[in-house]
Amino acid sequence: MKDHLGRQEAVTVKEAIKILQTQPIHTTKTETVPIEKAFKRVLAEDIFSPEELPGFARSSMDGFALFAEDTFGATESMPAYLRVVGNIKMGEKPKFKLRRGEAATVATGGMLPEGADAVLMLEYTNRVDAETIEVLKQVAPGENVIAPDEDIRKGERILQKGHRLRPQDIGALAGIGILQVMVYKKPVVAIISTGDEIIPPHEKPQPGQVRDINSYNLIGLIEDTGGIGIKKGIIKDNREELKSALLEAISTSDMVLITGGSSVGTGDYTEEVINELGEPGVLFHGVMMKPGKPLIGAFVGGVPVFGLPGHPVAVTICFEVFVKPLLRKVSGEEVLHYIPERKRVKAYFSRNLPSTLGREDYIRVRLREEEGRLVADPMLGKSALIKTLVHADGMVIIPKDSNGIYQGQEVEVVLFEY
Amino acid sequence: MKDHLGRQEAVTVKEAIKILQTQPIHTTKTETVPIEKAFKRVLAEDIFSPEELPGFARSSMDGFALFAEDTFGATESMPAYLRVVGNIKMGEKPKFKLRRGEAATVATGGMLPEGADAVLMLEYTNRVDAETIEVLKQVAPGENVIAPDEDIRKGERILQKGHRLRPQDIGALAGIGILQVMVYKKPVVAIISTGDEIIPPHEKPQPGQVRDINSYNLIGLIEDTGGIGIKKGIIKDNREELKSALLEAISTSDMVLITGGSSVGTGDYTEEVINELGEPGVLFHGVMMKPGKPLIGAFVGGVPVFGLPGHPVAVTICFEVFVKPLLRKVSGEEVLHYIPERKRVKAYFSRNLPSTLGREDYIRVRLREEEGRLVADPMLGKSALIKTLVHADGMVIIPKDSNGIYQGQEVEVVLFEY
Repeated sequence: MKDHLGRQEAVTVKEAIKILQTQPIHTTKTETVPIEKAFKRVLAEDIFSPEELPGFARSSMDGFALFAEDTFGATESMPAYLRVVGNIKMGEKPKFKLRRGEAATVATGGMLPEGADAVLMLEYTNRVDAETIEVLKQVAPGENVIAPDEDIRKGERILQKGHRLRPQDIGALAGIGILQVMVYKKPVVAIISTGDEIIPPHEKPQPGQVRDINSYNLIGLIEDTGGIGIKKGIIKDNREELKSALLEAISTSDMVLITGGSSVGTGDYTEEVINELGEPGVLFHGVMMKPGKPLIGAFVGGVPVFGLPGHPVAVTICFEVFVKPLLRKVSGEEVLHYIPERKRVKAYFSRNLPSTLGREDYIRVRLREEEGRLVADPMLGKSALIKTLVHADGMVIIPKDSNGIYQGQEVEVVLFEY
Repeated sequence: MKDHLGRQEAVTVKEAIKILQTQPIHTTKTETVPIEKAFKRVLAEDIFSPEELPGFARSSMDGFALFAEDTFGATESMPAYLRVVGNIKMGEKPKFKLRRGEAATVATGGMLPEGADAVLMLEYTNRVDAETIEVLKQVAPGENVIAPDEDIRKGERILQKGHRLRPQDIGALAGIGILQVMVYKKPVVAIISTGDEIIPPHEKPQPGQVRDINSYNLIGLIEDTGGIGIKKGIIKDNREELKSALLEAISTSDMVLITGGSSVGTGDYTEEVINELGEPGVLFHGVMMKPGKPLIGAFVGGVPVFGLPGHPVAVTICFEVFVKPLLRKVSGEEVLHYIPERKRVKAYFSRNLPSTLGREDYIRVRLREEEGRLVADPMLGKSALIKTLVHADGMVIIPKDSNGIYQGQEVEVVLFEY
């Protein structure tokens, strides 16, 4: 459907997300990395433990290894008495065997001697003499003991393909002696800036020119999502230049982001050029949201291509809403939908703000405290203004079926935290 | 105060945090980095803009530059007519001057010609012939125009010392031509693993031995907080070895984390050794929390030193609660207390779980969906078990004045998301 200016009719945010989700995704290739380099990488294999952990019966407390049965019925007023026959050295298999009526001192992490089936905490004992302790409490068999396979069983799947590795996962891999893992390569995302008015940041702008903000913003957004952003430079408003830059980018990257050139302006042939390069081409051009309306969503031969608006704020919003979830899929990540993409806080909105029905509004807000309450002040101003993003702590989303936010209304702020 | 086993009495979590906060902090030294490398770094200077942005009157829409007054009263039924005298090229100062009754086509981001004070969107015009447009709506002076200093004023402070740079901040720096910034150096955090039973991950454990999990977990936690973790290796349970390793670590690092050796076990002289190395030494030993009780908090000559428990789960919890906020301060970061450290979600707790009054309990939980509701299942098991962290999506904190959580109770889950 085209409108009277020859533009495709805009889709809703939900429709746009669905269109992107239904496209087949090519995940990146895999590589093997040492676990020291695997933090935040996405596993490309299931991990099964080659051995059990801890591998031996281990004390989880400082105290005495003993036979649980020898403590049955013991209380502070009716203590049991045990003979201390040894001291278990850390990191060694005890050289002695425990017999009934005997105990051995053991520190947290020490190995239980043969015979012992429980550990009594130091706190519940009294030393009578060098060889004898008073037991003030009974323990059950297995109490304060970690069984040889209690942490991880041999052959157990401890981590799943598609999981982004967290610090504790790297710790667990070290614990079972897995020193390298197969992960998905970091997706390479090409960034093409377009516009005759755009110059690199090291140049001095002449009247009518502005420096490239979007490529620098995108590099960070991509890095934060686990990708590698590659600046492909600034392309002038020229059909052939854009086409050849796009062709090169598609053939060397896992995703392509074009900024600018998605409005109905002079030299707006981004959509045509994308369609010429391959199937299925442009999937939508125009989304009912503000900012971000001129967004182009496309796939060319399996590579997602986004035509992002030129306004810096729109770039960030479109990245968060559309690019980021797709980039995580390209990275091989299995995303649990109930884990939010960003931190959120509740705050009270500081003024009335109308919104157009049928359109999602993304309002940048700054947070402050007032009388012990968190207050969100909208950063009003055009989406061309980078300052509305720089001064913002987060954003509030006004859904398409709402006509605005009232002063004092409680809102959820999606935080810009990295 | 010492208890009957000669241990210092435990402090509450709140007290421990306060004790740490009142110590004077040495932030790291500063360095200058190019903005491409500055993402997530902490600014060590205020940033004032050397120029205005965009620097010229700029259209924020595709349409016609014109005199607002020429459109006053124009409607669809009573259009105004203007003569199109030029087409503004992107990135150039228009070579013509606009006179009353005239308009010029302009694309988003184009520079307004002398005389023009507003832009009318393309949508509200009709082409009558090659030289004439119908104006269907009036615009106010300044409408759809970005004033030369509307985004950033010359001399305006756009970013503050102590701010951790986000993607949009890097974009703004590029926009005003600032190509390098002064930031705090990443804090170097020494990690000392202690225990005769600990071996490096590449070795095959003998009975009684376990591989070093904690150093690998900590490396990721430190990296996630913007620091650089340096594994100082595994120190045997030997007073002199620990002392010399600690001395070396304190003199070469911004913070020292010792794992193991904080319990009252064999070879537990960590506290004594820290106190021998300098003032103020150990500030607390023992916190009323589970896991994490044996934690040691110390400062030696301005360097924070933590004696973390040996259990992997306790390491993660103590890092989150005590180490992370301090590490951010050492990094020079000004932390806004109302910005949460981690993402959180609400969930329903799946079972009754008692908790001891007077102690904070940190319960690892796994999330799942059941009948459209998010449910948190506690991962029960000793804090020595790394699997309870690997299988967990986050944690629920039971405050010290609560005696537990009831089945079906709504809880806030602090997510382990990196």
